[in-house]
Amino acid sequence: MAEGLRIGVLGTGLMGAPMARNLLRAGFAVTVWNRTAAKAAALAADGARVAADPAACAAEADLVVCMLENGAVVGAVLFDGGAAAALRPGAVVADMSSIAVDEARDHAARLAGLGVAHLDAPVSGGTVGAEAASLSIMCGGTEPAFARARPALEAMGRPLLVGPSGAGQIAKLANQMVVASTIGAVAEALVFAEAAGADPGRVRAALTGGFADSRILELHGGRMVARDFATRGKTSSQIKDLVNALRAAEAAGAPAPYADLSLGLFRDLLAADGDVDHSGLWLELRRRVASTP
Amino acid sequence: MAEGLRIGVLGTGLMGAPMARNLLRAGFAVTVWNRTAAKAAALAADGARVAADPAACAAEADLVVCMLENGAVVGAVLFDGGAAAALRPGAVVADMSSIAVDEARDHAARLAGLGVAHLDAPVSGGTVGAEAASLSIMCGGTEPAFARARPALEAMGRPLLVGPSGAGQIAKLANQMVVASTIGAVAEALVFAEAAGADPGRVRAALTGGFADSRILELHGGRMVARDFATRGKTSSQIKDLVNALRAAEAAGAPAPYADLSLGLFRDLLAADGDVDHSGLWLELRRRVASTP
Repeated sequence: MAEGLRIGVLGTGLMGAPMARNLLRAGFAVTVWNRTAAKAAALAADGARVAADPAACAAEADLVVCMLENGAVVGAVLFDGGAAAALRPGAVVADMSSIAVDEARDHAARLAGLGVAHLDAPVSGGTVGAEAASLSIMCGGTEPAFARARPALEAMGRPLLVGPSGAGQIAKLANQMVVASTIGAVAEALVFAEAAGADPGRVRAALTGGFADSRILELHGGRMVARDFATRGKTSSQIKDLVNALRAAEAAGAPAPYADLSLGLFRDLLAADGDVDHSGLWLELRRRVASTP
Repeated sequence: MAEGLRIGVLGTGLMGAPMARNLLRAGFAVTVWNRTAAKAAALAADGARVAADPAACAAEADLVVCMLENGAVVGAVLFDGGAAAALRPGAVVADMSSIAVDEARDHAARLAGLGVAHLDAPVSGGTVGAEAASLSIMCGGTEPAFARARPALEAMGRPLLVGPSGAGQIAKLANQMVVASTIGAVAEALVFAEAAGADPGRVRAALTGGFADSRILELHGGRMVARDFATRGKTSSQIKDLVNALRAAEAAGAPAPYADLSLGLFRDLLAADGDVDHSGLWLELRRRVASTP
């Protein structure tokens, strides 16, 4: 159900390109722009119009979707790149990039001054979720803005309005906090079990299906047992997310002892083993086993 | 498939009674004993023979199942209560109680001297799992002992041999480490999200189905959102398990920073709120939110 929405997509990288394709498949009229123009041009074969600059991408859009690297880039593209000024009053910007909470709120306030609504709408699920249109999309903003963007968001995954402006980024940080510390808890338990004389693969199997079960136990736990730390999710991106989470927690006056512990361990891992997979936290805990118990 | 095994069950409390019933339903000949005799007598209606003392319960058994409070009680019932001396050589003791690793290994060694095999076989799944015969049963011991006990264990849940003597208790401690710290990570994330201005129920819903998903997010996360801390699993039992885990980790030379953090938080929770549900860790983190961010 395309419902006639005209959509501009700013940023067609590893995540943005499959998301734009899913919008096209759902029947929306999609105009794309990317800093490296070739990545946008490749989407012409899928039926996208290719814009020469952010302003041209935004000019006729009812909804602008951003999928960019960080908050500074989003700000530059929207406000310095001319997209915001080109938008018609009544349009909606859904920023699906993972950026700081304060940046998202600042963008919302500046767009409001132009009569444009803003949703922060970061996602979880990675490139696999982007391709399968199964992203978890955590939205912050008003009900009316969410209602207008919803048909397009549903073409990319499972959108949920979690609160006012900034709340989507808060939910994404909460997601990262749980992910990072669950990886740590699973790594700690498997390192302990092996050091104490049990078979870690069988222990992981025994824990599966019980109270200790989680997506992390399945995916990352499996990589730990297999000693397979080839990078799917980078340690450096985990550190970035945890730093943002701790900053946001401090601003909110909230305690974050697990995130703090996880950040220290991931930093030590990066220093010792480089930018391995998140599951590499097993290496950091394994390194701390006393050689002569 | 009862396969002719005669089973003695020592301890028919909240866990042992439904486990004995599942053995009877599967067609095994079951003799039961319990310190509070009325709890054992109640199983006569289900077809159990009721023994007057542990020795009588064990005398004709091919397999003795223990489900008792702790290692000291298991030792007293087996060795002071006369069960071990009454056992025929070739019998198997499956101790499904959660006890210390060293105690389990000590019991195994003492029984080996009598020609009796020992499995440590603690469980995860609680009374719900005991009733539904869906317990995760983590076994430490030899392959032959596991093979002999397996038909009976399968009538109570999903048994898995995870290593030699003691490994079942190690797996149970690993399970508790993951459970405790996942509860902490979920509580921290939900407290943060709310303090920062998002709706915690919606954030939990948004996290479900993604990388942050877990049994704990479903069950305990739901209780945190509903502010429902009525006790299903006691804070005091969580503390007992974490103390055992940290002792075992120290003995193995393994680091346990997440379990250590969780133990401190659960102790503070117990001191402030009493013996509430494990999900009450939310209360402890919520208490630490600065009143004026």
